[in-house]
Amino acid sequence: MTELGEDRYGKQAIRLVRVVKDGPRHVVRDLTVGITLQGAAFGASYVNGDNALVIATDTMKNTVYAFARDRLSGSIEAFGRVLAEHFAASPQVDRATVSIREHRWERLAAGGAPALDAFARDSSWTRVAWVAVAGREVTIEAGIEDLALMKTAKSSFAGFPRDPFTTLAETSDRIMATQVRARWRYVSPTIDHDAVFERVRATFLEVFAEHDSPSVQASIWIVGRAVLERHPEVAEISMALPNLHHLLVDLAPFGLDNPGLVFVATTEPHGLIEATVRRS
Amino acid sequence: MTELGEDRYGKQAIRLVRVVKDGPRHVVRDLTVGITLQGAAFGASYVNGDNALVIATDTMKNTVYAFARDRLSGSIEAFGRVLAEHFAASPQVDRATVSIREHRWERLAAGGAPALDAFARDSSWTRVAWVAVAGREVTIEAGIEDLALMKTAKSSFAGFPRDPFTTLAETSDRIMATQVRARWRYVSPTIDHDAVFERVRATFLEVFAEHDSPSVQASIWIVGRAVLERHPEVAEISMALPNLHHLLVDLAPFGLDNPGLVFVATTEPHGLIEATVRRS
Amino acid sequence: MTELGEDRYGKQAIRLVRVVKDGPRHVVRDLTVGITLQGAAFGASYVNGDNALVIATDTMKNTVYAFARDRLSGSIEAFGRVLAEHFAASPQVDRATVSIREHRWERLAAGGAPALDAFARDSSWTRVAWVAVAGREVTIEAGIEDLALMKTAKSSFAGFPRDPFTTLAETSDRIMATQVRARWRYVSPTIDHDAVFERVRATFLEVFAEHDSPSVQASIWIVGRAVLERHPEVAEISMALPNLHHLLVDLAPFGLDNPGLVFVATTEPHGLIEATVRRS
Amino acid sequence: MTELGEDRYGKQAIRLVRVVKDGPRHVVRDLTVGITLQGAAFGASYVNGDNALVIATDTMKNTVYAFARDRLSGSIEAFGRVLAEHFAASPQVDRATVSIREHRWERLAAGGAPALDAFARDSSWTRVAWVAVAGREVTIEAGIEDLALMKTAKSSFAGFPRDPFTTLAETSDRIMATQVRARWRYVSPTIDHDAVFERVRATFLEVFAEHDSPSVQASIWIVGRAVLERHPEVAEISMALPNLHHLLVDLAPFGLDNPGLVFVATTEPHGLIEATVRRS
Repeated sequence: MTELGEDRYGKQAIRLVRVVKDGPRHVVRDLTVGITLQGAAFGASYVNGDNALVIATDTMKNTVYAFARDRLSGSIEAFGRVLAEHFAASPQVDRATVSIREHRWERLAAGGAPALDAFARDSSWTRVAWVAVAGREVTIEAGIEDLALMKTAKSSFAGFPRDPFTTLAETSDRIMATQVRARWRYVSPTIDHDAVFERVRATFLEVFAEHDSPSVQASIWIVGRAVLERHPEVAEISMALPNLHHLLVDLAPFGLDNPGLVFVATTEPHGLIEATVRRS
Repeated sequence: MTELGEDRYGKQAIRLVRVVKDGPRHVVRDLTVGITLQGAAFGASYVNGDNALVIATDTMKNTVYAFARDRLSGSIEAFGRVLAEHFAASPQVDRATVSIREHRWERLAAGGAPALDAFARDSSWTRVAWVAVAGREVTIEAGIEDLALMKTAKSSFAGFPRDPFTTLAETSDRIMATQVRARWRYVSPTIDHDAVFERVRATFLEVFAEHDSPSVQASIWIVGRAVLERHPEVAEISMALPNLHHLLVDLAPFGLDNPGLVFVATTEPHGLIEATVRRS
Repeated sequence: MTELGEDRYGKQAIRLVRVVKDGPRHVVRDLTVGITLQGAAFGASYVNGDNALVIATDTMKNTVYAFARDRLSGSIEAFGRVLAEHFAASPQVDRATVSIREHRWERLAAGGAPALDAFARDSSWTRVAWVAVAGREVTIEAGIEDLALMKTAKSSFAGFPRDPFTTLAETSDRIMATQVRARWRYVSPTIDHDAVFERVRATFLEVFAEHDSPSVQASIWIVGRAVLERHPEVAEISMALPNLHHLLVDLAPFGLDNPGLVFVATTEPHGLIEATVRRS
Repeated sequence: MTELGEDRYGKQAIRLVRVVKDGPRHVVRDLTVGITLQGAAFGASYVNGDNALVIATDTMKNTVYAFARDRLSGSIEAFGRVLAEHFAASPQVDRATVSIREHRWERLAAGGAPALDAFARDSSWTRVAWVAVAGREVTIEAGIEDLALMKTAKSSFAGFPRDPFTTLAETSDRIMATQVRARWRYVSPTIDHDAVFERVRATFLEVFAEHDSPSVQASIWIVGRAVLERHPEVAEISMALPNLHHLLVDLAPFGLDNPGLVFVATTEPHGLIEATVRRS
């Protein structure tokens, strides 16, 4: 006999630009929204082909655009909550999850002042929010993605075990480069999301810059612990940090030394270190 | 106080080509391998910056290449198991997981016969395997990715609820297109992996082609149940199927009807339906 | 003083699926179409901001969809010609170029026979056509893209000069792997495009498989010359072949030799060889 | 009879990170370099399979890394010139072209001051240089890529012709969004490349922000003319600007108007406008 296990469905990659036109100084909000619904009642759509309770994913998309008209005035966390609560209010929905990625546009300069209505996209990092609503329970997470970081000093890797397949030399001075995926859960949904996000981001970057790293593993711990220690709003933080190896080029055949100066940047293969740091 | 939560680390995107040269008729194996280790003992590398037990990810890469020399003669599941058991044998490893994607190369024709040593890559789908070893427990999963499928008939979507944000028309005749991500777990690790994989794949494609689909949800159930019913080796199967909408073009402004003939293929936004079907 | 130099404009990435429903056995045509117009009269749109002669790119898109209803029954070259001649008929257009990429869908099996209405995309290569119409002159080119090929024998690279920066060893036995971009121009626009394309493709693959390659450069010449010699319909052929290096892994640290068995597949950096072979 | 037409070869995607360590304040240069050689003498490598004059692309790569050790201290244009002149000095080379993309890393903050050795990548735009050396002739071009821009006002599109396939409404208020590819040629190779580049970039952004756009075509002209008028160092400038359409969402079904507030951001299909503005 077969049965349905875990299931979920929704709409992804809803691309939305909202221009705020309160006067000549425009503001651009550029979001990619995803909606995911779960509920025991949806089982019938799988097992019986019965769509009577299936909120169409096209309807989800329409709802996002309609809500963007009047309810997207603050943080992406707030907008995600409005959406998640809307969908969670349907009786067949046990849990509604909304993910929002915000693509940042910076104001150009015009005539020596910030332009009113012209922007350049800043692709250097992406702010992400996840809001889950299940009954009266609201869980909000925030995160940073698409952020490439590099340390050219204070990064080592030594003291690791050697077996017959180990050829890596110990190093007390290497490049550490990564592409950050960080995600943290807030203790409470009712905080000043924009302000706290900025403070967490500042801590993350500052500790990344300052710390001595004996490994990517230790870096996750050091950065994560600092976030928790400085920001009581954060309950736990998870990171997935690829180790984007920069290989020292052997210049000896050309009669040159290479004391940490010239590197090949690579993406394949890469280390991948993932961990969560949380309050105990 | 802070503590370490879940953690794992390893090497990803190890790109490996193994040419089998038993005589003039060569065989190409083209794999992307990933290694992931977990273990309570690794906590010290995070919390204390102590690498004494950290198997370097560079060592993992070397091991994959060395093992490819003599131990990659059968299925990717078998190769994954050899690797996973190797790493799981280290006392600090509680669980070793190996993922392998196999990129398929087809023999070209030369002089009216299959070429001995020339190949074209078939990118139409990718076979994937995951092998996890924890102590004596071995879990093997297989899957298909990068497979785009389309039904131009026998796909409908109707009977769904309408709310103030619903504009989608009911339809008894639509294009259903998706990019398959399917993954199934085997009841036992000791089966003929190549043969069973091919049989599961054949069932998947045949049932996809033949069934009447009232929704992507129902398609997952119908295909998944058939896989379980026909293949006792499979314990459960999960799918993540995007609904890649094909929008009927309104040709009325040009004096033309469009009875299901001309469509815009889109990727954004897309539905995403995920579910597991298992034995009960 | 400033002036306008070369200019062109149009619509790209028009995604079109046409389902042919002459009876229960459906046929899928999946195209990506691009339209580019050139004409001296368009200068006013740049220099004077005068759109009086600017065919909107939205109109181009509409035209493609409308024409797909009734005029897409044969080769992509024929469809491209219909479109290019339509746009070239506007007096402000000196030259209209249409590019079409066809994404191939293969019929699935159902009940032991080819399915009537279910398909899997074959991503292993893409057929491309370019049609340019300028007045009464019609130029048609065809090509292959997204085709990955590999030779595991009959590929060498030796006899090249050595300077102080040369470290590469000569080799009489290497893997040659590439991703083909080939494009050829037909002597005349009035040929059986589907048949000739298939014959050229067969020659390309067969000669690639059979020839001995002293370099990628020579391979282009050998394959290109064969296409011209066997296919009088082809006036010239151009190729851009990346040399996707497969690096022999040094297994000596692990006590193993590696006589051309285990390779690292790489994409960065890669050689890139481009040349045209033509009738003299 | 067949003959060789145009040909060129070289190495692409050479990924190079150079850390400048003159004291504790490090500087990161992150480049992707490409080398392309042309020369009549290379014909023999195609036609005769004779590699006697073929500078190996691996040697090109080595040269780039070796030169990065001591000769990468200024602009990418200067580094490109050193490389191009090196390769052009070989008698078999008629023309050597070097392309360099610089990936920008910004200094993080640490302890309230700019960090000495920690950086975040700024992916918002990429500076590109092309240097061609043929005998004594040196041609230098510079450019900007990967720069996304948006105007939320002062962009219209009206007055275009209407034919039976035209459905687009005229608009005096639309979003104009694009991803810039701009490339300009300098009158002379001996200028202060870093300074001039920054001035050209500033002009480009400022004029983009300030101008009234009746079409993307006119925007290219207006921006290009300003670059030429303000910067005598520039001989001509070419742009390829996709028109990344932002479609106004129809909110009427939900009882809402949408006066230029809520848009769907799209990439397929897109307009593509390409033109050169030059001194006459």
